[in-house]
Amino acid sequence: MLPNPSLQISGERFTVVYAIRAASEGEALARAKDMALEQTVEFPEELVPPGDILQHVVGRIESCRPAGEGRFEAAISYAVETVGGELPQLLNVIFGNSSIKAGLRVERLELPESLLVDFHGPRFGRDGLREHLGVHNRPLLCTALKPMGLTARDMADLAYQCALGGIDIIKDDHGLGDQPFAPYWERMQRCSEAVLRANAETGRRSIYMPNVTGPAEKVVESARFARQVGAGGILICPGITGIDVMRYLADDEEIGLPIMSHPALQGNFVTSPESGISHYALFGQIARLAGADATIYPNWGGRFAFSKAECESIAAGTEVEMGGLKPIFPTPGGGMTLERIPELFEVYGKDVIFLVGGGLFKQGPNLVENCRHFLSMIS
Amino acid sequence: MLPNPSLQISGERFTVVYAIRAASEGEALARAKDMALEQTVEFPEELVPPGDILQHVVGRIESCRPAGEGRFEAAISYAVETVGGELPQLLNVIFGNSSIKAGLRVERLELPESLLVDFHGPRFGRDGLREHLGVHNRPLLCTALKPMGLTARDMADLAYQCALGGIDIIKDDHGLGDQPFAPYWERMQRCSEAVLRANAETGRRSIYMPNVTGPAEKVVESARFARQVGAGGILICPGITGIDVMRYLADDEEIGLPIMSHPALQGNFVTSPESGISHYALFGQIARLAGADATIYPNWGGRFAFSKAECESIAAGTEVEMGGLKPIFPTPGGGMTLERIPELFEVYGKDVIFLVGGGLFKQGPNLVENCRHFLSMIS
Repeated sequence: MLPNPSLQISGERFTVVYAIRAASEGEALARAKDMALEQTVEFPEELVPPGDILQHVVGRIESCRPAGEGRFEAAISYAVETVGGELPQLLNVIFGNSSIKAGLRVERLELPESLLVDFHGPRFGRDGLREHLGVHNRPLLCTALKPMGLTARDMADLAYQCALGGIDIIKDDHGLGDQPFAPYWERMQRCSEAVLRANAETGRRSIYMPNVTGPAEKVVESARFARQVGAGGILICPGITGIDVMRYLADDEEIGLPIMSHPALQGNFVTSPESGISHYALFGQIARLAGADATIYPNWGGRFAFSKAECESIAAGTEVEMGGLKPIFPTPGGGMTLERIPELFEVYGKDVIFLVGGGLFKQGPNLVENCRHFLSMIS
Repeated sequence: MLPNPSLQISGERFTVVYAIRAASEGEALARAKDMALEQTVEFPEELVPPGDILQHVVGRIESCRPAGEGRFEAAISYAVETVGGELPQLLNVIFGNSSIKAGLRVERLELPESLLVDFHGPRFGRDGLREHLGVHNRPLLCTALKPMGLTARDMADLAYQCALGGIDIIKDDHGLGDQPFAPYWERMQRCSEAVLRANAETGRRSIYMPNVTGPAEKVVESARFARQVGAGGILICPGITGIDVMRYLADDEEIGLPIMSHPALQGNFVTSPESGISHYALFGQIARLAGADATIYPNWGGRFAFSKAECESIAAGTEVEMGGLKPIFPTPGGGMTLERIPELFEVYGKDVIFLVGGGLFKQGPNLVENCRHFLSMIS
C-alpha cells in the first residue's frame, strides 16, 4: 500500500544520548526502539517501507547500557537529512513527541560538522561580548531593572545608577513587557539613553539589555528598535517566544546585538531528574545552538533548586566543542547575594556573568556604592 | 532607595489556581507567597515599595486549602495590568519562573472579560470548522501523511486516497519539515491539489493541513502560501514555534485558515503529576486562548500514558466558558486504532476529531476502503 522510495542519503548522522527509565535492559531497548520510530517516521515498525526509509530515516540505536539503578543510557543516531537544516525540526527530532513520555531524558547532543554547518550559533560569544564591553580579565557583572510597577523614568534612573557604579550589563527584568506602568518603547529609549549618559561619565562601555520577549509580530521590530536607540544588547525568553525566534535575532544583521537568554517557562524540562532535557543540553548546548551569547539559569543555593553539579554541567555545555560555535557565558542568577560572589568566582573562574538583582539593594542605602562594591569583589 | 509610585490600576484581576506540594499548610502558604512575588515583582518582599506596587502589582493569595496528602490548592490573583494585553506576558505571569520549581502546577485559569477582551482565540472554533468542512452531525475524521521519506508525489497520492475515502482532515505528520525527500513548497502544492481533486469527485469538502512549524522567518509566509494553494487549514506545534506564533496565525486576516495544534515538545509540562501545567489548562484553555481550532493530544490507551480522566479534562477545557472564546475540538490521537472508535465516540460524543494515523493502514490493503470503513463507524 505504501511506496518504498530510493532516497539520496549522505550517510551523515547526528546522535542524541538519552537517559531511559526502565526495569530491565530489555525494556530499555524496547523504549529506545520506540523512540527511534517516534522521533522520525512515527509509524508502527511493521508498516515502515523496508528499503531506505527503514534503513536510514528511522533512528538507529547505537548503544544502550545500564547507567545506575533502573536507568539506562541509549545513544540514538538520526540522518542529518531528517532535520532539513532547520532548528525547529532539529529540536523536534531530538525530543518532540518523546517529551510527552515520562522517564525519557535528553542527556547530551553530539552534532557533526555536517549538521552544524547550517547553524551560526552566537554572534558574539565570550570573546565578542568581552570586546563589546571592553572588559577582558574578570567576570562580567549584570543586574536586572525591577520591580514591575516603576515608571520608565524610575527604571532609567536605576539603570543610570547601576551603570555609574560599574555594572557591565543592566537588563530588564524578564517580566517587563508593555505594561501601562512603564510603556515599552518609552522604557527602551529612556534606559538606553541613561546607560549611555553614565558611560560618558565613567568611560566604561556598560550596556542596557531590554526584554524583547513579546508578541510574535513585535519581537524583531523591537530588537531593531533596541539597536537604533543605543541599547547594547537584548534579553529574550526562548521558552515563551519560541527558541527559533532567538536564533533569528542572532542571525539578523540589522540587529547585530549580543543576546541573553532567560529560562522562563523552560523550567519543566528540568524539574524532573528522569524526564525532559538535561541542564547541560538545554541551558548549555541548545541555548548556544540557538544563538544566545549568555545563558541565564538559577544558581545553586538561591531561590531555586538547581544543584552545584547541575550548574557546573551548564557551564561545561557553554564551552564544549561544537563545531565552529563560539563558547558563551554561563549566567548564574536567581536570588544571588553579594556574599556568594567569592565562592562562585572560585567555581566558575572568570568566564562567567554574575547576575545579582534584588541582592544588589540589600548591601546598603546607596545603589551606586553597592554596585562599586560588587565590582570591587571581582576586580 | 526605590521610588514608590502611584499607579493607575483598574482593580480588575485574573486568577490562576495552582496545586502546591507541601508538607503543611504553613509551607503551602509560604510557597504561594513566594509565587505571588516570583511571578510579578521578582523581588524580596522587604524591598518591594510599600504603596501601589505591594498592594496591586504583587500577586494576591485569594485562598489556600488542603487538596489531598501533601498537596494544597492555592488561588492567586494578578492585576490585569501586569499582562499588558499580550499573550506571551500572560503566560509569563501565569508560570514563567515558577516553572523552574518542582511541585508547583497550574491547575486552571479564571480569566475575566476585562482580560479576554484582548484575545480573539480561535477564528473558527467548532461551528466554524464544521461549516468549513460541511460536516454537521458526526465526529470529524483526521489522518496524518507519513512516514517521513516518502516523496511529495507519494504524499499527495496518499492524501488523494484519504480524501477519496472520506477523511475530513488530512494533515502532515508533525515531523514533516523541509526535508530533501519531500521539499516543503512542493509538498504543500501537490497535497493541496490532490485533496481538491478528490473533493471534485466526492462532492465533499475535505481539507489538507500542511505543517507550518518551521523557522521563525518562514512560518507566516508558509501559512499564507498554504492559503494560496488551496490548503484548507494548517498544523502547527506551538511548543516548537512558540505559542504566540499560533496566536498570530489565528489573528492574521490574510491567512484565515483553521488551525490544529500539535503537542510536540510541550510534553514536559504534563509528564509529572505535581509539576507543570495541567492537561486541562495546557491543551484545553491555553491552546484555545492561543487560537487553535483543534487541539491534538495522545488519547488514553495508545502509545502515550495520558489517563482517561486527563483526556476528559482536556475535552472540558475545550468548551468551558471563557468570555467570548469559541469552543474548539478535542483531537485525540497517538496510536489510535479503528477498533477504539466506538468506545471513544461513547466518551467524547460527536464534538471531537478522531485522529488515526498508522492505524488506518492496518485495517486492510486498500487505503480508500479503510477510510470508508473509518467513516462508516461514526456516520
